[in-house]
Amino acid sequence: MEEMRANDPSRRTWVNVEEGSDFPIQNIPFGIAGLETKESVIVTRIGDWVMRLDVLATEGFFDSTGIPREAFESASLNDIMLGKAEIRALRNRISDLLEVNNEILRDDHDLLDSCMVRLEKCRMQLPVSIGDYTDFYSSREHATNVGTMFRDPDNALLPNWLHLPVGYHGRSSSIIVSGTDIRRPHGQQKPEDGPPVMGLSKLLDFELEMAFITFDGKPLGQSISTDEAENYIFGMCIFNDWSARDIQKWEYVPLGPFLAKNFASSMSPWVVTLDALDPFRTSSPKQDPEVLDYLKYTGDKNFDIELEVFIEPTSGTENRVCLSNFKHLYWNMSQQLAHHTINGCNIRRGDMLASGTISGPEPTSYGSMLEISWKGTKPIKLNDGTERKFIQDRDSVIMRAHCNNGSTKLGFGEVRTRVLESK
Amino acid sequence: MEEMRANDPSRRTWVNVEEGSDFPIQNIPFGIAGLETKESVIVTRIGDWVMRLDVLATEGFFDSTGIPREAFESASLNDIMLGKAEIRALRNRISDLLEVNNEILRDDHDLLDSCMVRLEKCRMQLPVSIGDYTDFYSSREHATNVGTMFRDPDNALLPNWLHLPVGYHGRSSSIIVSGTDIRRPHGQQKPEDGPPVMGLSKLLDFELEMAFITFDGKPLGQSISTDEAENYIFGMCIFNDWSARDIQKWEYVPLGPFLAKNFASSMSPWVVTLDALDPFRTSSPKQDPEVLDYLKYTGDKNFDIELEVFIEPTSGTENRVCLSNFKHLYWNMSQQLAHHTINGCNIRRGDMLASGTISGPEPTSYGSMLEISWKGTKPIKLNDGTERKFIQDRDSVIMRAHCNNGSTKLGFGEVRTRVLESK
Repeated sequence: MEEMRANDPSRRTWVNVEEGSDFPIQNIPFGIAGLETKESVIVTRIGDWVMRLDVLATEGFFDSTGIPREAFESASLNDIMLGKAEIRALRNRISDLLEVNNEILRDDHDLLDSCMVRLEKCRMQLPVSIGDYTDFYSSREHATNVGTMFRDPDNALLPNWLHLPVGYHGRSSSIIVSGTDIRRPHGQQKPEDGPPVMGLSKLLDFELEMAFITFDGKPLGQSISTDEAENYIFGMCIFNDWSARDIQKWEYVPLGPFLAKNFASSMSPWVVTLDALDPFRTSSPKQDPEVLDYLKYTGDKNFDIELEVFIEPTSGTENRVCLSNFKHLYWNMSQQLAHHTINGCNIRRGDMLASGTISGPEPTSYGSMLEISWKGTKPIKLNDGTERKFIQDRDSVIMRAHCNNGSTKLGFGEVRTRVLESK
Repeated sequence: MEEMRANDPSRRTWVNVEEGSDFPIQNIPFGIAGLETKESVIVTRIGDWVMRLDVLATEGFFDSTGIPREAFESASLNDIMLGKAEIRALRNRISDLLEVNNEILRDDHDLLDSCMVRLEKCRMQLPVSIGDYTDFYSSREHATNVGTMFRDPDNALLPNWLHLPVGYHGRSSSIIVSGTDIRRPHGQQKPEDGPPVMGLSKLLDFELEMAFITFDGKPLGQSISTDEAENYIFGMCIFNDWSARDIQKWEYVPLGPFLAKNFASSMSPWVVTLDALDPFRTSSPKQDPEVLDYLKYTGDKNFDIELEVFIEPTSGTENRVCLSNFKHLYWNMSQQLAHHTINGCNIRRGDMLASGTISGPEPTSYGSMLEISWKGTKPIKLNDGTERKFIQDRDSVIMRAHCNNGSTKLGFGEVRTRVLESK
């Protein structure tokens, strides 16, 4: 496989990229843009420019990557997600074309006109046609907070939590892209006294998560080891796992959350490759008790990704309500994938596996309103003077993610969702 | 919409159909067959003949159905599943072509040669490209048995059970078609004393279920009422929701079953349309307490479908271990779909919603070995002299389903799965 030369921190580009942009030449994420002239186009992003890969593929620029030209005509990234080697070759090739001294594209004004589009002219779409979606529960701080609130502070973690990355199946159909409004859901709720009632959720919440997207896995009946796992991961995005706490409370015993979650989950539109995140590797929290062999791993499998959540009320500006970090996660992605397949379960190209709420140790790093407001007992004040225990109608929730190791800084953009009153 | 003339019990066909076949002219199910000459073909079945719809579509026979000819060239049924009206028109048209006095096909020997294939020459495949898969838990008898065994016989049903059709998300990738062997899964288990261990599941079980497959639903944010629900249902099949009880016990609190289920689920290859099941409508068990408005319905929404489970050990013949009926279900499909969408969750073409284990009131009608052997305390004897508490390596589990109202008899064929030792 090629080296990750696109990660060279000294690379500069001939494109005008604003200082501090999430999308320097070291990023090269992938997405799907809707344009005036074409409904869905495979693109990358550099600064505030979107670059059409379909146009460049037609010219033969990606013939060396092993990805056929026709694949770039697709309306989802799935058709180019052939594997780690192909995506690395593609990202390197794009990086080369954008490199400051490379004149091929830089000096071809006709080609530039047809392949470079200003971001504001694009409607970003769901990047991947998602097959199965799994949600984990991998933040010890989050699980401890939930256990403390709802069960026993002295035995906050359930017995299995330290032995396996707890996860459950979610719903793919209602995964939406940043910028898509959602409606407050209806659902059954159970008042303290009296029978269940139907009504609007009053306890609408976000969950700060990241998700990863897979390449083709192994056939049904085979497992992926922690050593192999990263070869099956295409990239990551920010994920808001919307949750209706009142619906959840009544429905979730014994088979888990269902309608409390599947009304909507929001993802950021740019898939940042695992290759691009390589410079931001870091160690994970020590696991004690020792995990079973199939969950052991070597090397740094976690990533230092700073995460922020903002609430923007209709009459105000952004309020940061959470500053967390992906590196807090107790279970890493390689362990999640090894666990998911240890029974022979197959993963497919375009599956999505989310982290679960990523809370840190401090109250300012809690990744849901449930924890931030401690079940509604500690409302927070916004800069327009209003208070929040949970999310209100017309609030926008914005999540952002950045990496910075001193020599390279890059980011994921954002996932932004506004809550509308229900019809 | 057309009448369901294909349901006329007096219709006979020019095809030689064995008396008592699951596939008389009143059935007309849909499936995907692999042939020597073509990998995947859309077909129907009459008796032990498989009829190629791709060939007939090319000849223009289905132009009046509203389904474009190209759709019949697909490798999954999804492309012809345009809606209830189109599928009804297609089924009626096929029935007309097979009707005893219709000479169009009957007397065209060249066409017959190219469209009729003996069943034994077909490898039946997964009929539908499944999007999201949801599993319900809608048998009161099953939920009561489980609650009695694992919790409290006096409070066997959890508080929410009588108020909503409890359901959870499952895994699509590992749904396989009848005839596909599975391997006994590995997984974490927790001995009574001591830390968790990794090992082969010792408590491998089937769950007797039926599943339905949907047409396109409504956009995200809208709900489907019980009155509308059947318009969104394409058809049904038999479903074996394989379960590893020892893995399940350790993992499922608090987020539900995960690796205990997603190693494999087996479905029968023929989708029997809801139209074909219309003559077998029946009432449901009375629901007390009264359900909330969105779960109320009018008319008979349940179906009288006799269900059987057999174990065939490697050294013996079939042993029937369960005789149950779909009509026992407390929550019907229309209620399941109304509940699933009450929060605005969208369903898509090709989604699958399964019933949960269908147990009846008698021990002979229990739909899982967990219940039949009562947690392994009451082993059953097979006709080769061996005993079973759960499923052993090299056992085949076979499920069959039939309807018979006196004037029409039809069936679903079978779902058959053999368990191999793990590698």
